[in-house]
Amino acid sequence: MENGTTRPAQAAQRTVISVDAMGGDRGPATVVAGLVDSARSDADIAFLLHGDEAVLRPLVAQHPELVDRCDIRHAPRVVTMHDKPSQVMRNGAGTSMWSTIDSVKAGEASVAVSCGNTGALMAVSMIRLRKLPGVNRPAIACLWPSRNPGGFNVMLDVGADIKAEAEDLLQFATMGTVYARNGLNLKRPRVGLLNVGTEEHKGRAELKLAHDQMTAAQEAAGFEFVGFVEGGDIPSDRVDVIVTDGFTGNIALKTGEGTAKLISDLLREAFGAGLLSKFAALLALNSLKRLQKRIDPRRVNGGVFLGLNGTVVKSHGSADATGVAAAIRLAAQLGRSGFLDRLSARLASAGRAGQDAAGNGSGQQE
Amino acid sequence: MENGTTRPAQAAQRTVISVDAMGGDRGPATVVAGLVDSARSDADIAFLLHGDEAVLRPLVAQHPELVDRCDIRHAPRVVTMHDKPSQVMRNGAGTSMWSTIDSVKAGEASVAVSCGNTGALMAVSMIRLRKLPGVNRPAIACLWPSRNPGGFNVMLDVGADIKAEAEDLLQFATMGTVYARNGLNLKRPRVGLLNVGTEEHKGRAELKLAHDQMTAAQEAAGFEFVGFVEGGDIPSDRVDVIVTDGFTGNIALKTGEGTAKLISDLLREAFGAGLLSKFAALLALNSLKRLQKRIDPRRVNGGVFLGLNGTVVKSHGSADATGVAAAIRLAAQLGRSGFLDRLSARLASAGRAGQDAAGNGSGQQE
Repeated sequence: MENGTTRPAQAAQRTVISVDAMGGDRGPATVVAGLVDSARSDADIAFLLHGDEAVLRPLVAQHPELVDRCDIRHAPRVVTMHDKPSQVMRNGAGTSMWSTIDSVKAGEASVAVSCGNTGALMAVSMIRLRKLPGVNRPAIACLWPSRNPGGFNVMLDVGADIKAEAEDLLQFATMGTVYARNGLNLKRPRVGLLNVGTEEHKGRAELKLAHDQMTAAQEAAGFEFVGFVEGGDIPSDRVDVIVTDGFTGNIALKTGEGTAKLISDLLREAFGAGLLSKFAALLALNSLKRLQKRIDPRRVNGGVFLGLNGTVVKSHGSADATGVAAAIRLAAQLGRSGFLDRLSARLASAGRAGQDAAGNGSGQQE
Repeated sequence: MENGTTRPAQAAQRTVISVDAMGGDRGPATVVAGLVDSARSDADIAFLLHGDEAVLRPLVAQHPELVDRCDIRHAPRVVTMHDKPSQVMRNGAGTSMWSTIDSVKAGEASVAVSCGNTGALMAVSMIRLRKLPGVNRPAIACLWPSRNPGGFNVMLDVGADIKAEAEDLLQFATMGTVYARNGLNLKRPRVGLLNVGTEEHKGRAELKLAHDQMTAAQEAAGFEFVGFVEGGDIPSDRVDVIVTDGFTGNIALKTGEGTAKLISDLLREAFGAGLLSKFAALLALNSLKRLQKRIDPRRVNGGVFLGLNGTVVKSHGSADATGVAAAIRLAAQLGRSGFLDRLSARLASAGRAGQDAAGNGSGQQE
């Protein structure tokens, strides 16, 4: 048991992920099962696990895979899905979520992972980690199954804030570009701005302004601007990064997930009806599994908070062990790639370029 | 050939649909093929077909099904997908779209159907038909495949306008209720307000206000208000009518369509790979067809413009003959059910109820 709390010398080589054990819909046992999956597939990973020590210690002790690799940090309180972000921001000290973020702030861990309340997680992350210099609105970026060779597109913001001005959208484009470089290995990602039509005269005023600013900034910010894209383009191969405000992005994300869930349920129904169909499903098992894997939301689990002095991965509240493991894999990848340093460097240079190119309408902030 | 242009006595019993032959992506031959499908399955339908007579006359003449049932109205000009709504509104006379709407205005046809430019169609419909008394913003309502027994939910606005105030959203709820009654045979539809969370404190200011107004108005307007719903609830069975602004609704609609398309393409790929999978697909053909039918966007083709002195059905620009026929079937159903009279009666009584219940925040307009 003592093994669970000591940090032997070899752990120093490992990428340390700070994990919130509480606050997910399925409870800490599911989170610990996710850690086990991650520890099995990644020998160079270690965890700081935050939550009720009396609950966590016996859970961790059951798994020899976690010996020497999981340090428990006691946090007596839990943020629930119903807590208001503003309250958590004021009174959140002592919660597992707060403690999880603080380990990143203190430099003990590279990246934080939580399945908890999104609004509260963003609020705590903002107040503890603070925004990167020059960032007005942080954003949450998600991966979206797509027709591109890599299999995924990036979309942001999917819910950090409920609105975004033109300048914020431009910054989302820059941050999404760095994420697509590190997460999808794309040299010069193609960025599209989500709108209700692709013609330049369409949409809200801030979108037309952002369109002009992105056209001007694409060279300096390292992306190719493809202009306006529509909802149907989100999974397409004409774009790599889709930029939108957090209200629209959150609704698009959940609509896509809901549609995929409906279809896969109907598919299961279709193959469950009748002996012949069941036999057919058996024959097509591999094909169906490949498809399932392609669109399984658990595999792309993990919204990344961008624009803060530290990287935070928000896992789905309902994530099972596979989902938690996917979020941790993403966290480890971002921790190892030096993502945060690249992001802040890019934002700093974009800020300088914006100041140099004064008069293009982006001078409102700073 | 003369048969195609005369209107014999028995046509007076038929439901007359005014159809724009031009402006769709696939051209007038596809629209005429859709009319043929409709004429075959519905003996009590007749058409006024608007467009270039020299093109339309030979197309119609090829189909004996259309004899006596399709009157051609020559319109020399066409609205393209790139024309700006504001220009079409000023200079649209002489286009097939304008002529299609004018037949409804003149009372020659019950409902109009067009595959053309949505923005232009809404603009022409607004200027020619005018808004119903008390309506501030008209809306476009669509049907969405769902887990409900009827198989569909109603969502509005999916693109008439890019914004909506609280009062507009309340009116959308009332209009969507009447549509769900006539289109889905629901006595007391459940209405949900689309937001980024279901907690009452979430979302934009106008959504919180609309939440309060809908809670107060549900009894008088004949719906049950279920509160905020999220993107994932759009295809669910906890709601029948989803209310949102036209920007968000349009993006959700296209995101859902894009996701369904991606999955069905991946499914086709999966069953096309390898002999075993192909054999399995053959065995499961009926199940797959049932599924396909359930989520085929062509079957639910037709956004309905609500809030005008006349009913207009917007078909997908890329609709094939099956899609055009689905839009016409919807138009005929609405024409026969006396939908427009019911809608205007309900709006009038909701307007009175709103005036009676002064002080609940809805007194901003009128």
